[in-house]
Amino acid sequence: MKYCSSCGGEVSLRVPADDDRERHVCDRCNTVHYRNPRIVVGCLPVHGDLVLLCRRAIQPRRDYWTLPAGFMEIGETTLEGARRETWEEARARVEDESLYTIFDLPHISQVYMFYRARLAAPEFAAGPESLDVALFTEDAIPWRELAFPVVDLTLRRFFEDRRSGVFPTHCQTLRPADWSRTP
Amino acid sequence: MKYCSSCGGEVSLRVPADDDRERHVCDRCNTVHYRNPRIVVGCLPVHGDLVLLCRRAIQPRRDYWTLPAGFMEIGETTLEGARRETWEEARARVEDESLYTIFDLPHISQVYMFYRARLAAPEFAAGPESLDVALFTEDAIPWRELAFPVVDLTLRRFFEDRRSGVFPTHCQTLRPADWSRTP
Repeated sequence: MKYCSSCGGEVSLRVPADDDRERHVCDRCNTVHYRNPRIVVGCLPVHGDLVLLCRRAIQPRRDYWTLPAGFMEIGETTLEGARRETWEEARARVEDESLYTIFDLPHISQVYMFYRARLAAPEFAAGPESLDVALFTEDAIPWRELAFPVVDLTLRRFFEDRRSGVFPTHCQTLRPADWSRTP
Repeated sequence: MKYCSSCGGEVSLRVPADDDRERHVCDRCNTVHYRNPRIVVGCLPVHGDLVLLCRRAIQPRRDYWTLPAGFMEIGETTLEGARRETWEEARARVEDESLYTIFDLPHISQVYMFYRARLAAPEFAAGPESLDVALFTEDAIPWRELAFPVVDLTLRRFFEDRRSGVFPTHCQTLRPADWSRTP
């Protein structure tokens, strides 16, 4: 950030009065421009004993498999965002959703939130950001071709919880050092 | 947003290629400026059968009682943010935290996340944004003087769950129409 989005003046990094950390502050109109972490919302769509995955058509991790997810938009709820992304990437409708996994990724200032949901019907197709969309049994999950650790961990939690039939909300912090330890 | 924070050029609202909604796009350098919902993190600090509340020293809702909470910062986890806010507003340290309530407030594009936590010691004091900090039994909660519906609902959930001793993560959407129905 070099310029003020309100007045076009130059901004500099300084600590505003009544604050304790550096912010981008406009040298001309004194507007303080805050930066905030972003929320990524998605779904774990389930159909019987199958789960739905999308093969990414875009970078990063093109060709790898993921759960439908993306940045939450202004004016929507986390669930509305998760449903929207599921439609955009997998052309699938979900129902009976419950918040399932939450991941803090502080090194990139993102918070992931996945809803576990039932596929409303076994109908899906690749949206513009997907090369392929398919249903997988646990044994068929392409573990070595998953796009992101949050996808791997959400799937592992799910298959583990499914044995007991209890699906609590899981909350976890992932840092780059943890990624290499992901099986 | 009137000016591009990258180059200082004028921005206009238009739908970028490969997108489906209007964004602020720079007319000069074509940078797309996304706006995203913000996360508010906080704690429900518990000490024995008491809970800790802060009386707000700032607007909005000055003089009303709240749980310590505030905007999540870049580079921190939701829990680190909740701990930081608890220190800043109540000069209290917490431990044994677990994610407890999540509220979607789509009309203001905010997501609230409260951690239920144990006060590490019965030590607290008003930080710069608080007029007072105090511990309350359930019977003494100033229900009519609570600052926000998310505070009211988190406390109600807590006292309700405490009867069974089970504290699942609760997820709820609050819209302005719901506020007037809050008891």
